[in-house]
Amino acid sequence: MLRTHTCGELRIQHQNQIVTLCGWVQKSRDLGGMTFIDLRDRYGITQLAFNMETNAVLCEQARKCGREFVLQVTGKVIERSSKNTNLPTGEIEIEVTSLTILNTANTPPFTIEEQTDGGDDLRMKYRYLDLRRASVRANLQLRHQMAQQTRLYLDGKDFIEVETPVLIKSTPEGARDFVVPSRMNPGEFYALPQSPQTFKQLLMVSGFDRYYQVVKCFRDEDLRADRQPEFTQIDCEMSFVEQEDVLNTFEGLVKHLFKQVKGIDITELPRMTYADAMKYYGSDKPDTRFDMKFVELNAVVKGKNFKVFDDAALVVGICAKGCAEYTRKQLDELTDFVKRPQIGATGLVYARINGDGSIKSSVDKFYDETALKEWAAAFNAEPGDLLLILAGEATKTRKALNELRLEMGARLGLRDKNTFSCLWVVDFPLLEFNEDENRYFAMHHPFTAPKPEDVKLLDNFDTLGNVRANAYDMVINGVEVGGGSVRIYDKTMQARMFEILGFTKEEAQHQFGFLMNAFEFGAPPHAGIAFGFDRLCSLFGGADSIRDFIAFPKNNSGRDMMIDAPSTIDVKQLKELSIELKS
Amino acid sequence: MLRTHTCGELRIQHQNQIVTLCGWVQKSRDLGGMTFIDLRDRYGITQLAFNMETNAVLCEQARKCGREFVLQVTGKVIERSSKNTNLPTGEIEIEVTSLTILNTANTPPFTIEEQTDGGDDLRMKYRYLDLRRASVRANLQLRHQMAQQTRLYLDGKDFIEVETPVLIKSTPEGARDFVVPSRMNPGEFYALPQSPQTFKQLLMVSGFDRYYQVVKCFRDEDLRADRQPEFTQIDCEMSFVEQEDVLNTFEGLVKHLFKQVKGIDITELPRMTYADAMKYYGSDKPDTRFDMKFVELNAVVKGKNFKVFDDAALVVGICAKGCAEYTRKQLDELTDFVKRPQIGATGLVYARINGDGSIKSSVDKFYDETALKEWAAAFNAEPGDLLLILAGEATKTRKALNELRLEMGARLGLRDKNTFSCLWVVDFPLLEFNEDENRYFAMHHPFTAPKPEDVKLLDNFDTLGNVRANAYDMVINGVEVGGGSVRIYDKTMQARMFEILGFTKEEAQHQFGFLMNAFEFGAPPHAGIAFGFDRLCSLFGGADSIRDFIAFPKNNSGRDMMIDAPSTIDVKQLKELSIELKS
Repeated sequence: MLRTHTCGELRIQHQNQIVTLCGWVQKSRDLGGMTFIDLRDRYGITQLAFNMETNAVLCEQARKCGREFVLQVTGKVIERSSKNTNLPTGEIEIEVTSLTILNTANTPPFTIEEQTDGGDDLRMKYRYLDLRRASVRANLQLRHQMAQQTRLYLDGKDFIEVETPVLIKSTPEGARDFVVPSRMNPGEFYALPQSPQTFKQLLMVSGFDRYYQVVKCFRDEDLRADRQPEFTQIDCEMSFVEQEDVLNTFEGLVKHLFKQVKGIDITELPRMTYADAMKYYGSDKPDTRFDMKFVELNAVVKGKNFKVFDDAALVVGICAKGCAEYTRKQLDELTDFVKRPQIGATGLVYARINGDGSIKSSVDKFYDETALKEWAAAFNAEPGDLLLILAGEATKTRKALNELRLEMGARLGLRDKNTFSCLWVVDFPLLEFNEDENRYFAMHHPFTAPKPEDVKLLDNFDTLGNVRANAYDMVINGVEVGGGSVRIYDKTMQARMFEILGFTKEEAQHQFGFLMNAFEFGAPPHAGIAFGFDRLCSLFGGADSIRDFIAFPKNNSGRDMMIDAPSTIDVKQLKELSIELKS
Repeated sequence: MLRTHTCGELRIQHQNQIVTLCGWVQKSRDLGGMTFIDLRDRYGITQLAFNMETNAVLCEQARKCGREFVLQVTGKVIERSSKNTNLPTGEIEIEVTSLTILNTANTPPFTIEEQTDGGDDLRMKYRYLDLRRASVRANLQLRHQMAQQTRLYLDGKDFIEVETPVLIKSTPEGARDFVVPSRMNPGEFYALPQSPQTFKQLLMVSGFDRYYQVVKCFRDEDLRADRQPEFTQIDCEMSFVEQEDVLNTFEGLVKHLFKQVKGIDITELPRMTYADAMKYYGSDKPDTRFDMKFVELNAVVKGKNFKVFDDAALVVGICAKGCAEYTRKQLDELTDFVKRPQIGATGLVYARINGDGSIKSSVDKFYDETALKEWAAAFNAEPGDLLLILAGEATKTRKALNELRLEMGARLGLRDKNTFSCLWVVDFPLLEFNEDENRYFAMHHPFTAPKPEDVKLLDNFDTLGNVRANAYDMVINGVEVGGGSVRIYDKTMQARMFEILGFTKEEAQHQFGFLMNAFEFGAPPHAGIAFGFDRLCSLFGGADSIRDFIAFPKNNSGRDMMIDAPSTIDVKQLKELSIELKS
């Protein structure tokens, strides 16, 4: 080893020991008689001291070491005269007696500090320098810990980690596959998996009983702000279980991770039906860090000649505790917020419950004090509260109110990144109608089982939308971090599902024949789940973006700015792959 | 849960408990009054008993359950009248009181038994059924354990698992890349990594200090018998270390795995230079489960008018202990063996050391008893031994003798799959001369550092072949399971290496610019290693082929027979990717 200790481990009890450290120059201060260097490695920072009086040559040498030079130093651990209580090593410094410059460094294009002066593009291009920043490194250390703890938990529950193939078969269904031309099979292509779904189901058919994998998946979609073309899943499947068993097993995982990684006890992990989530939060991934449930007002507000409410399919609102004092300006801001095109409400009705119990609304022309008291009662509102009400087509209005609720939660400081509220959303619809294509799509995927009690509804096109699935999502702080379902394991039901989804028999056979065939040979009842690992890590890290929890992320054009990929390839290589570029 | 216990856990102490089991019908025996079913799951086999007298309806139902039907049964644990000591559950059986057929099964295309009647192709096509066989499942359970123990060990040594990208940049150097057309960047391609080499080096530049990953890699090569287009590596890198530190750390890993997974203490892990490996074993991956070292005979055999030896650059042999009694037929077999085209020796000279000490050779015409005694002395041979000698061009002869040595080891039973001999081979040459292209190639890869004491040899084309690298391979039982090197971390040396390897400055910049640039910003001394995880698992499993240690392997044409990939894709999809098939 080129060192005896790391830059994070020396303490006052090491005093007088002769040590050798290696690391990077974080910063250097020349105080005339003394020169100090903060030497950094993954484990911490240790102060090096060079004295002009005792060793001028060495001190001069130290002064020449620029930021990010790589040094090896030997010296004595001594007590600092002025201690730094912010640093675990802050009680000591190294009185350096020998210094080797292991490598020099050009001046980095941005500062390697928490508040860096580097813009996104620059930091992506020099990702290897951005990764030197303590917070980015901490994110990846958190990720490591999450992966390790996930494996420990699942290993302890008899799950076997099985690697499924990356070079698989393309399926036209769903989002776009990345494909890989096969040199050995000209004209043919592999596809990269969007998930190991069918393989994990085949492992259940094989009797593996409990499978997991922390696995890369791929999706060639137009990238939204926080999507990556390659992403990581915690992918799991279990046999001979019911939905309840899956929920118990994986809330166990979530509790384990919070306990081991964050030191947080998650005591409650409530369950909410999809129907309730939509009704009370206007979202299938409600942020339950705060209450502010939707209250439907149709029964209370209709028939008072207020056309907007009378014409609306749904009038629904939230009660913002203690916001009665909101100014006109603040209320206008909220109105503007809900009227933004991406939210799409036509207006916002409010009512303040004043301190004296009187109520003042934006629609006093139509609603008298008695009527407004009924509103307040519906909300269980108290003096000081502010009612915010939207009206219109039901689904759209709920969606808009969900946005307003989240905005109010943020304004009221109810969405603290270090508070965690976990929730199972269950009983998702099996199918989702697509108006454009006039057909149903699988809400989860084509392998999800309908609830046994709803199977009869599959017989009628008009009731297909009412069929519920044994499908579930894990939602934390309003973010869907995982989802899964009980699977179909009966070949007749699976064939029927493909038919409902508009597959011809031939298409179903061509694409999923191997799974349908496998179901002929004794498939067990099984169910599973997958967690978005990048997202889970960013949530644990209290961050909004997944990008800083990925060592080498791609930008919104799917480009790795550091290595400059994708890139052109040789004509010779194309020829070997039996493809050519389309002009 | 659909069960209270697994099929592997019930014992005599569970007697009289009412239990519910789920599993597959392994086999069924109808003895008239009684029907017995062996119910199988991942955990074991439990015998179910159905009695015609006590419950005829149930017994009839049981008789109808074919092989591989999926059952759920409830009943009482009772002591068996005739116990099966080969089965952990062999002391008990279940007196079944209720039976649910969870799924039926067609007759499998081959028997789900250790000695199956299924051929390779059939078993690949129905891999999900082959995976039901206990030995195949055991292989994958071993693999799981290996991965988990690898992570535990490295985690304990402060290694951080970092996921490196799968969609990277194509490099013309080395074996062929799989490429992935980018839809968003028409005409451009990602490549799948042959290894995360440059990324792990960048992580060292980032200060990650210790990195590991159990990671899929890809190589579009013509597949030899035991290669897969996608394979898994244990990939590691460390900073501020010397070769010795890497060797110590990873022989620790190997010892840990043997101890935890196999219960074997590896006490010795010797080191051998590449030069010695070639001299004494004719191979850079000697099987050291047995001795039988090469003995060079030039000094002893020359000048006796035996033209074959006199003309040979090298005369070299092995001593097969106790084989003096080999028959003429056996010796002819060995001669035929070494004369096979893939081995390519022109003949085999032998000498038997008889029990009475007399020596009889195939070249008695040229060598008298005194001369032959000198041979025997060179080998330290004893009465009863057989000397086998080859002659010719040095490298080719060593290679041929290596094959003969391995053959003799096998014939003498010295290559037991349950005996393990580990070895580091060190001091590999840095460069390898390619006669066809009249240039040097990197023996390991272009990032490997020359030994400091050999750097001066880089200045002269004629001495390039003599430069040794700080490169090392881990060899177990004659199989190279891992290899690595101390890396270049100096940008000038790296540029020089690219130059020696025939890269123009532009090519080097185009392909590895990001790494060369990274070296401008403070690269630490670093070194690493990668283990072939599939191979390591098969070795631990005592198997020759890696295929049965991979859940869903591809065949020698790179085809997944089960899902029938690769396959053609839609013209529409090709169009979106801006490529077309070359006619």
